[in-house]
Amino acid sequence: MPLVTFQPSGKVIEVKPDTSLLEAAKQADLEISTPCGTNRTCGKCIVRIISGSVDPKNEGLLSKKAIHDGYVHACKTSVTQSPVTIEIPESLKKKGQFADTSKDMEHLSPDLLPKPWQINPLTNKFHIHVPEPQAESGLSDLDRLSQSIKKEWGNKKVIFSMEVIRRLANTLRSQNGSVTIAMTQTTDHYRVIDIEPGNQTEKSYGVAIDIGTTTISIQLVAFPEAETLNTLTDYNEQVKCGIDIISRINYAQQRPERLAELRDKVLKTINHLINKTVKLHNIDTQKIYNCVVSGNTTMTHLLLGLNPEYIRLEPYIPTILEAPLTMASDIGLDIYPHALTFISPAVGSYVGGDITAGLLCSEIASDTDDVYLFIDIGTNGELAIGNRDFIMACACSAGPAFEGGGIQFGMRASKGAIEDVTIDAETGLAIYKTIANAKAEGICGSGIISLVAGLFQTEWIDSSGKLDQTRPSKAIQINGRQASYIIVSEEESSFGKPISINETEIENIIRAKAAIYSACALMLSQVELGFEDLKSIYIAGGFGHFLNLDNAITIGLLPDLPQEKFQYIGNSSLMGSTMALISTDFQQKLLELSRRITYIDLSTDPGYMDQYTAALFLPHTDASLFPSFKKS
Amino acid sequence: MPLVTFQPSGKVIEVKPDTSLLEAAKQADLEISTPCGTNRTCGKCIVRIISGSVDPKNEGLLSKKAIHDGYVHACKTSVTQSPVTIEIPESLKKKGQFADTSKDMEHLSPDLLPKPWQINPLTNKFHIHVPEPQAESGLSDLDRLSQSIKKEWGNKKVIFSMEVIRRLANTLRSQNGSVTIAMTQTTDHYRVIDIEPGNQTEKSYGVAIDIGTTTISIQLVAFPEAETLNTLTDYNEQVKCGIDIISRINYAQQRPERLAELRDKVLKTINHLINKTVKLHNIDTQKIYNCVVSGNTTMTHLLLGLNPEYIRLEPYIPTILEAPLTMASDIGLDIYPHALTFISPAVGSYVGGDITAGLLCSEIASDTDDVYLFIDIGTNGELAIGNRDFIMACACSAGPAFEGGGIQFGMRASKGAIEDVTIDAETGLAIYKTIANAKAEGICGSGIISLVAGLFQTEWIDSSGKLDQTRPSKAIQINGRQASYIIVSEEESSFGKPISINETEIENIIRAKAAIYSACALMLSQVELGFEDLKSIYIAGGFGHFLNLDNAITIGLLPDLPQEKFQYIGNSSLMGSTMALISTDFQQKLLELSRRITYIDLSTDPGYMDQYTAALFLPHTDASLFPSFKKS
Repeated sequence: MPLVTFQPSGKVIEVKPDTSLLEAAKQADLEISTPCGTNRTCGKCIVRIISGSVDPKNEGLLSKKAIHDGYVHACKTSVTQSPVTIEIPESLKKKGQFADTSKDMEHLSPDLLPKPWQINPLTNKFHIHVPEPQAESGLSDLDRLSQSIKKEWGNKKVIFSMEVIRRLANTLRSQNGSVTIAMTQTTDHYRVIDIEPGNQTEKSYGVAIDIGTTTISIQLVAFPEAETLNTLTDYNEQVKCGIDIISRINYAQQRPERLAELRDKVLKTINHLINKTVKLHNIDTQKIYNCVVSGNTTMTHLLLGLNPEYIRLEPYIPTILEAPLTMASDIGLDIYPHALTFISPAVGSYVGGDITAGLLCSEIASDTDDVYLFIDIGTNGELAIGNRDFIMACACSAGPAFEGGGIQFGMRASKGAIEDVTIDAETGLAIYKTIANAKAEGICGSGIISLVAGLFQTEWIDSSGKLDQTRPSKAIQINGRQASYIIVSEEESSFGKPISINETEIENIIRAKAAIYSACALMLSQVELGFEDLKSIYIAGGFGHFLNLDNAITIGLLPDLPQEKFQYIGNSSLMGSTMALISTDFQQKLLELSRRITYIDLSTDPGYMDQYTAALFLPHTDASLFPSFKKS
Repeated sequence: MPLVTFQPSGKVIEVKPDTSLLEAAKQADLEISTPCGTNRTCGKCIVRIISGSVDPKNEGLLSKKAIHDGYVHACKTSVTQSPVTIEIPESLKKKGQFADTSKDMEHLSPDLLPKPWQINPLTNKFHIHVPEPQAESGLSDLDRLSQSIKKEWGNKKVIFSMEVIRRLANTLRSQNGSVTIAMTQTTDHYRVIDIEPGNQTEKSYGVAIDIGTTTISIQLVAFPEAETLNTLTDYNEQVKCGIDIISRINYAQQRPERLAELRDKVLKTINHLINKTVKLHNIDTQKIYNCVVSGNTTMTHLLLGLNPEYIRLEPYIPTILEAPLTMASDIGLDIYPHALTFISPAVGSYVGGDITAGLLCSEIASDTDDVYLFIDIGTNGELAIGNRDFIMACACSAGPAFEGGGIQFGMRASKGAIEDVTIDAETGLAIYKTIANAKAEGICGSGIISLVAGLFQTEWIDSSGKLDQTRPSKAIQINGRQASYIIVSEEESSFGKPISINETEIENIIRAKAAIYSACALMLSQVELGFEDLKSIYIAGGFGHFLNLDNAITIGLLPDLPQEKFQYIGNSSLMGSTMALISTDFQQKLLELSRRITYIDLSTDPGYMDQYTAALFLPHTDASLFPSFKKS
């Protein structure tokens, strides 16, 4: 069988003829990101043939120069009978940098956080004394432990995990009945999940997990103090199978074993993060007795191994919205196997537990008359609006444009990504800044927004996003009916090709911003309010950290309100999860909150299309909505 | 390493020098029974060296002739550096025959059995229709299934196994919401453990399991008719590790991994029986949704993997008496993994769930003024006495004499065992009958009782069990101060040695019968009743099937009452388990019954020693208690 050598790693594997280069890389355990979920549509899996012959089907997605230089699409190129050496460009497998979210919670209003007397995780450790065995009483070990628990905490049913029963006899007798139990208290029963000899109450931990479509963050908390020990983030391993939830769902449908593969991948990332975080503090994973997981509805389904197919099929009804408390071992989490995991409740197929958990970080969850707006800008934009009397939530498919998707040179916010662009009004040329000041490889979300804002402010594009072809500029290139804007010249790019954006792509960005803005406007109109009636707007999600507010208002993504009306709250899904981890009161609050939320399906709302169409201009067809907007 | 060849199987294995032959046989997966639990005390593990040299330590337990013929004790004989061939005599690994207990239930009073309207196993299958998904309702798949269940059976909490949630989306949609659920109903919640498309209610089974120290029986039941399909029995694989519960407990203590070994062994037997029984009816084990297990307290502990040590240590307090409903997968039973298993409640360390389940087969469990006695004669004798107002139970250590233990030529009731003996009054010679009319290899329980009864009736032994040495008989042999009775001559035995019983062994038998009789008498005296006040006496246990009543009364094992007062009920533990399997009403009845039972610890009862001492004669010191007794 032919050998495939991968550079720069030097890894060599043997594959069957006709294996795609993408599949070969997978077999070699090398990462090539495929945002489309190997649907063969994104054209991002570009690799370079160094030697040997292959069978490429480039289908016009690559420039002639690129093809000449040996670039091919890994998904569409197959190995022949002969050996081949290929290079995986660094940018295809490089990990990005993550916003430091560990301090996010300190910026929240203290009123929103659990009070010291609300520190009551679902499972607590208690040191108790169980009477010694006596012939007269005739009480078994289990009877005496049950009675001690009921005496201390009141008469409820006590459930024991088999593991506890198995260790009971020796543990009870090892220190004359002095034992520490890990116990879950619910409204109708106690559940004893662990037993240790003597007093071990100091060794108790919890982990909050935010499963994003792109990244996963976890936060380790020590009890009984509820002290946050650290926060770690990594890419969701599922990214290899598709960049957004729709591609993941499609990926899952393609072959029966893929649902399990997606579950394994998300568990791999989570368990890797858990094991990394416990090592930093020399903690045993078996002492993690509490866990709260928040994610969008698709992520939750994939974690639990539930078929996500019906999330994207009419009438868009998922298997679960409120998941039951589930044993860590049933999920596959690498913590104490009998720990019960709380999964933040979803409101609908497209408003998930990440949003309900995130709302805990906003005044919407508090007892107030003021109305607040909560926006989570990501691949899917999710919004909520409300106060003590009502909460409405909806999702709008902004598309992956703000995360670099659907744009030829779009990329994640990693090294070499253009994150900020200024346009020279005279020449129309771009002055750009890349992450880590590296050679430009592409453009990320904040770069895209500043680019469009800059082009619009300097009038190099008009309200509909069309490039001004009447003024001469080296930055503007015309191919037939389509005009492109060159951000980085062929010479300056790391890739041997100019980095550009075309009018269709600018249009996609306008669609994305219009989707979010119009969804906000529609929800407000339904309660007969305007943006000016909002007390504050929360911007959630990792994206918020890098967003330039002026640029966002300039393109009409966000409403034209004073800076102080906006509040970045960072990874609110993780923070809300931590609150629910620390306090069952907050789990209860989260459940009540989610049940109060009215889920609005924009696709069936007759007013939405009007609002959306009106927002398909820069900044908006109704200029009066953006009074402070001035062209430079 | 030296090779060990086993005959007649021809199996060859390589072992380390100094490995015992017993250990070598174990490694070769060959069975040598060791009633003492490899405590090196029973002297039963005799094998024959055919060729090669070994390092034996026979310590005088074998006759000179036997040693000359190459017989050694497998537990005390080690392999040296050289190869060796050994023969495992057939009798050491032969399986016995089991009483046919499949029809036992037909002999019970119909009043005791579940009525047709009481057929309500813990888990039932139901065919239901779940509404199709609708955008307007916003109800998840799980919500709609929950609502359908609550609508049909009332508003209780519904718990779902993760397996059900995982299959929910596709199963609900496969036949437009027509599904069959397997659901466990408890007082405070519903638990959905399985879901299938369409109507599958016909495919539902249950299994009742009686775990005896020596044998395990199972009964397969088909629902919804509650029809008994078949009954199978086999030796408890644990027998290899000790014949009685004390040797099993000792075995478990010797090395940490042995508790798991004992658990594996009992599960191996049970799962083997389950797989055998389902094959007979072409049933899938995954369709067994109900299970009831009854066994003595030690057997239950070993099945669940609980340390049994404290059962035999003062104050004799076990880990559990009433076990919680436990998932089959937590136990290791090869049935539907989420099936909840009901374990019959124990009353004390030595009155277990086999007795409480057995009592369901007696009038003691019914609403009656009449007083009944229930006796389970086995290695441990267990007794219960009572009516609607009171129930007392106790255990007496009869010792293994009635099962052939503690007697040099004692054996199980298998081929070649002497099961009946008549004594020629003149010559004192024995006329015996063996099982299957094979060459005599030893004597089993019923043989021992008929032997002692015969010797006593013909006055070859006196009331204290001493042999009459004043009359000449070829059957009596005197070795120093100890006299022995030859049952089978050297020539007639299959073993090349005479089969005999000595006075010490006869004394053991008298102790055993005295233990049981005096325990009955003591319990009666505590409620100021005599045997004559009993309405009936139930004889339970496999032993009862072979017991000759006249002989048992002659030796004073059973009280001198008319034949019609006695009722053999066979394997009442299995029958009671089946009743509880068929009907949760009977599980409830069993729990209530067990809570009503007063556990009497004979060892601390001051009156017991007097009663016991008085019973240490044939039939009793008080001859008036046995008025119908006449010497032949």
